[in-house]
Amino acid sequence: MPKEIIDRIKGGLIVSCQSEEGDPFNSPEGVTLFAKAAVIGGAAGIRSREYAKTKMIVENVNVPVIGLTKSAFPDGYVRITGSFSEVEEIIKSGCHVVAIDGTFREREGMTGPQFIQQVRERFNCLIMADISTAEEGKACADHGAHFISSTLSGYTAETKKTAGPGPDFKLVSELTKDLTLPVVAEGRVNSPVQAAQMLELGAWAVVVGTAITRPRIVTEWYVSKMKNISERH
Amino acid sequence: MPKEIIDRIKGGLIVSCQSEEGDPFNSPEGVTLFAKAAVIGGAAGIRSREYAKTKMIVENVNVPVIGLTKSAFPDGYVRITGSFSEVEEIIKSGCHVVAIDGTFREREGMTGPQFIQQVRERFNCLIMADISTAEEGKACADHGAHFISSTLSGYTAETKKTAGPGPDFKLVSELTKDLTLPVVAEGRVNSPVQAAQMLELGAWAVVVGTAITRPRIVTEWYVSKMKNISERH
Repeated sequence: MPKEIIDRIKGGLIVSCQSEEGDPFNSPEGVTLFAKAAVIGGAAGIRSREYAKTKMIVENVNVPVIGLTKSAFPDGYVRITGSFSEVEEIIKSGCHVVAIDGTFREREGMTGPQFIQQVRERFNCLIMADISTAEEGKACADHGAHFISSTLSGYTAETKKTAGPGPDFKLVSELTKDLTLPVVAEGRVNSPVQAAQMLELGAWAVVVGTAITRPRIVTEWYVSKMKNISERH
Repeated sequence: MPKEIIDRIKGGLIVSCQSEEGDPFNSPEGVTLFAKAAVIGGAAGIRSREYAKTKMIVENVNVPVIGLTKSAFPDGYVRITGSFSEVEEIIKSGCHVVAIDGTFREREGMTGPQFIQQVRERFNCLIMADISTAEEGKACADHGAHFISSTLSGYTAETKKTAGPGPDFKLVSELTKDLTLPVVAEGRVNSPVQAAQMLELGAWAVVVGTAITRPRIVTEWYVSKMKNISERH
C-alpha cells in the first residue's frame, strides 16, 4: 500500500488546493471543486490543508491526497503539521500522506527530523518532510520520512534572505543527487516549463498550487503587471 | 452612464468567468466564486456567459459585467450572441455590456456589423463587437459598436489556419491604429507579460479567461508538458 501510493504519483503533478480567510473559495466545498477539476485535468495527487477540507477532498477524488495543518513557529513563520495532535487530526481526514515540517526548528521539544521519527513510531502513515535546505532533507531521510519536499525553501527566516522569485531548482537538484528517497519539487512553481524542468532534475513529482487554484492571486499578478503600463499612458 | 462604464475598465483586466458541461465549476455559483475572487484581486470587469450565471455574477460584484450567449454557426464555429432573442435574454441578466459576434458571417439574414446596427436601434445597451479581422473591426465600429474586441481571431474557419499559439498582437495593433473606439484585447492571453504588452499596443482593456478561471485546463497544460519528460525517464 505505501509503495503503491508512492508509485502512483511518480512523474505526476500534485495540485495544492488551499484557500485562506477572506477568499470566496475558503470552504470544504470550494477547495473540493478545485480538487475535482485538477483530477479531471490529469493531476496525480492533491495537497490539502485542514481536517474538514481534506476529508471532503478525500471523499471526492480517486488520487492520493497529502494532508497538512498550518500553524506558526514563535518567529511567526509557517509551521506545517507541527504537533502530535495535529498529526492525529489530519490523519483522521483519510489522507494518504501527511506533510510534516522537517526543518531543524523546535516543536514538541525536538527538531523536525526527530519529530518525524516519533511520528513514524506512533502513527501508521506516509510522511512527506517539508524542508528548506539540503541538510534538513538529508536528516529527515535518515529519520524515516517517505518523501522529501522542497516546500519551505524561501519560507523560513534563514532561506527567505536568499530565495529568488522562482522555484529553488538548486535545492531540488541537490536533494535528488544526495538522496535515494523520492524528492518532491514544491514552492513557487508557476509555469509548465518550470514543472518539466523539475522532473528533468530528477524530481519524483511536482506540486503546483497558486498558479492553478488561487484565481484571486493570479488576478493580482496580471493587474500588477498591467498597472505599470497603464500608469504611463 | 455608457461613458462611465467605458471609463471604468480603462487600462484594466477583465476576467472571463466561464465554464462548460462536465466541469465541476459549471454552475452560477461556481462561476460567481471566480468572479468574486477576480474582483478582490483587482479585476476591472467580468465577462460571463449565459443568463443565469451572468445574473448571479451581476448581483455579486461591483464592476461592469460583459454578458454573452454562445451557439454555433452552420459551419460548427462558435457564434457569440447571434440572434435578437439571445440579445434580449442576456440583457435581462443586468449585464452592462453585451458581447456580439461582429464577423461577416450571416445570422438573422445579415452580417455582424449589420446585426450590431440593428441591436443598437432596438435595444439600449453597450455593445462589444467580437471580431476576427481588422476589416470586421472597422465595419463594426462604423455600424455603432462601442468596443471592438479581438476575441475571435483564431476561432473562425478562416483565421484558424494562421493563428499561432499565442495572442494576436498584430490584430490588436492594427485595430488600435485604425480606430478611435476602445479596443479590447482578448484571446489566448495567458501571462501577465502578454497582458501588459497588449496595453503597450494601445488596448483599452485586456480579457483573460482560461489562465485564471479554468483550473482543469491549466492542470492539463502542466500535465502535458510534464508527460514529455516523465516518459523519457
